[in-house]
Amino acid sequence: MSFAPVYLDWNATTPIAPEVRDAMLPWLGAAESARFGNASSRHEYGRQARAAIDEARAQVATAVGAHATEVIFTSGGSEANNLFLKGAAACLKSGTLAISAIEHPCVREPARQLRRAGWALREIAVDADGRIDVADWQCAIEARPALVSVMLANNETGVLQDVVALGGDARKAGALLHTDAVQALGKIEVDFRALGVHAMTLSAHKIGGPLGAGALVVDKRVELSPLIAGGGQERGLRSGTENVAAIVGFGLACERAVARRVVEAARLVALRDSIEHALSVLGAVVFSRAAARLSNTVFFAFDGIDGETLVGKLDRAGFACASGSACSSAQPEPSHTLLAMGVDPVVARGAVRVSLGRDTTAEEVERFVATLSHVVRDLKKLASVAF
Amino acid sequence: MSFAPVYLDWNATTPIAPEVRDAMLPWLGAAESARFGNASSRHEYGRQARAAIDEARAQVATAVGAHATEVIFTSGGSEANNLFLKGAAACLKSGTLAISAIEHPCVREPARQLRRAGWALREIAVDADGRIDVADWQCAIEARPALVSVMLANNETGVLQDVVALGGDARKAGALLHTDAVQALGKIEVDFRALGVHAMTLSAHKIGGPLGAGALVVDKRVELSPLIAGGGQERGLRSGTENVAAIVGFGLACERAVARRVVEAARLVALRDSIEHALSVLGAVVFSRAAARLSNTVFFAFDGIDGETLVGKLDRAGFACASGSACSSAQPEPSHTLLAMGVDPVVARGAVRVSLGRDTTAEEVERFVATLSHVVRDLKKLASVAF
Ligand SMILES: Cc1ncc(COP(=O)(O)O)c(C=O)c1O
Ligand SMILES: Cc1ncc(COP(=O)(O)O)c(C=O)c1O
Repeated sequence: MSFAPVYLDWNATTPIAPEVRDAMLPWLGAAESARFGNASSRHEYGRQARAAIDEARAQVATAVGAHATEVIFTSGGSEANNLFLKGAAACLKSGTLAISAIEHPCVREPARQLRRAGWALREIAVDADGRIDVADWQCAIEARPALVSVMLANNETGVLQDVVALGGDARKAGALLHTDAVQALGKIEVDFRALGVHAMTLSAHKIGGPLGAGALVVDKRVELSPLIAGGGQERGLRSGTENVAAIVGFGLACERAVARRVVEAARLVALRDSIEHALSVLGAVVFSRAAARLSNTVFFAFDGIDGETLVGKLDRAGFACASGSACSSAQPEPSHTLLAMGVDPVVARGAVRVSLGRDTTAEEVERFVATLSHVVRDLKKLASVAF
Repeated sequence: MSFAPVYLDWNATTPIAPEVRDAMLPWLGAAESARFGNASSRHEYGRQARAAIDEARAQVATAVGAHATEVIFTSGGSEANNLFLKGAAACLKSGTLAISAIEHPCVREPARQLRRAGWALREIAVDADGRIDVADWQCAIEARPALVSVMLANNETGVLQDVVALGGDARKAGALLHTDAVQALGKIEVDFRALGVHAMTLSAHKIGGPLGAGALVVDKRVELSPLIAGGGQERGLRSGTENVAAIVGFGLACERAVARRVVEAARLVALRDSIEHALSVLGAVVFSRAAARLSNTVFFAFDGIDGETLVGKLDRAGFACASGSACSSAQPEPSHTLLAMGVDPVVARGAVRVSLGRDTTAEEVERFVATLSHVVRDLKKLASVAF
């Protein structure tokens, strides 16, 4: 892979960690001890699949301080978010649903579907750094929402929310509280009990696990209607033949990510800081710099340089970064998160996200900084000629 | 794998075909040319992932005579069935939904959820062999259901429905017509246009593809609300980062299964017939023997022998078969399909399914027949002593 571009988009997805892949291979028939089976089957193949899933469920639960029976495997984070919002709403009378204004589209869109189905939707404001506006939060909670969803870490800015503090009010007001912890897992401590939420979303492919697995961790007292109903797998909350290989990979990825978290975060924050230093020198704005953030993420913009253009130039120079939000970059609108922070749409159109991960080296970061400097200077020269 | 049990449960799930696995490995980082990426990312990694998905979409479409833009990738068959039923219902006023009485739980359960949400649910009767009762079908269609779902091939009996003939009436009456083709694909011809349905469900893991991929093939004029809303992937009908490895495997598995279908079916029907011959000699009832069926499936029962017990004995003797329906065998109730066929619950409790696949050999079938004969004779002796 010597000529492969440098990957600086770890918040979008991550390559599978080698140990994780090795644990999955038998379940893909690609190892000496090839295995397969429908975990519902009552024969040796089925029992082996069931045992592998049970082990993975325990690994996920341990990683996030939950009980194994609280882990509902899904196909990913988007499904888990939809399962919580629609599944809980289906068991309640239409009421109010409150979400932060910077949730991922896979929280925002199901919330909008619920609004069309008769729910009142309240979007909670964030401040200029992307932190929940506490006054607006309290105001929203006073309206006694039945459901509240606030993300632990934002995928674009990396900003962390104080879910523990915010959640107290929401719980006291009788709300079911959910947090999307997809970007937080493996990067900060994620403890289901300590967070005090009723439900939490995880995704495997953001932490060195495979695509195709995620989980809703959910307090058993929460009543949910399944999004995917059928054979009754996952305590009746998620039907469909279990994706054994992906679940096995997810379990190990959780274990690994949590074990390495502290050391890895310290290493990445140093690399991130060196990028931010260079960005300052080049005159970029770094969004949410004043807020508590994930150690691997930097979201920035240069005055007068379009984000898409910059990402395209970097791509051709061998560096893979994201413009706006990777997960919704099918529609090239300025970042919803930045608009919610009150960033001028013109500035927001310049947004580029660099996110680091376990394979990111100091040498890669150095080369990136050098290339970025060249590219930005060229683009600025062009811009000044154009005006 | 010399001591691995003989797998006779191919309708429950199948081992991944070696070529399919080899095509997937790069996307799991397990090959020289390791690849990964979020298909929504606008850089080299993302473009490669997108190109791989596009190719797989074309393969699936070609295999079933659909257009690539009609293929919506999902996490599997259960999700696709739920997507159609709930997604179409959400765009309509509550009306009547008609399904056959022998649908898989992942059609039946979402249908029941819709009933709780205000839809009228009509279950269409089958005859003693498991074929749709044409008079009851016509009667159901006269009630002008908005949605109709009838499976192409049943997972337990293997019985085929004449969806082309049945569908004509339903379409004329203005219904949106859906067929679950999960068990049919790769075993009989499946042509989306020729079937004349508005939507069709497929699943990769039943045809030598991986767990974690399926599709709803759907006419673009059908309005659907997404089950999993979010980033807007799959034309906005199925959000979530695409599972590239699984989708790549699904594409190739479709191509392979369709190319081998005719030869494979002829080979398997001969093996299946030899099992049925032995079953007759031993005095078993073979369900749906008079109906057009899949060539790989035999569903039978012995008078006075419990199906679970027989499957357990066979399992210990090294043969993996299913009792009742593998997909719902978490609940050991007698097969819903058999009860709908009017089979006495006492007889239905004896039901065992043997389903063959690409690795099944004549030698395995011979050994199975010999073992079955022993086991059945022993169990009958026990039963006669007990009385
Ligand atoms: C914060 C956040 N939530 C949810 C998701 C969706 O997860 P998945 O891709 O597993 O559906 C993502 C990424 O896509 C994310 O960044
Ligand atoms: C007829 C039928 N439909 C749907 C399904 C569900 O497919 P999946 O396991 O991919 O969710 C199955 C098997 O489980 C099936 O046999």
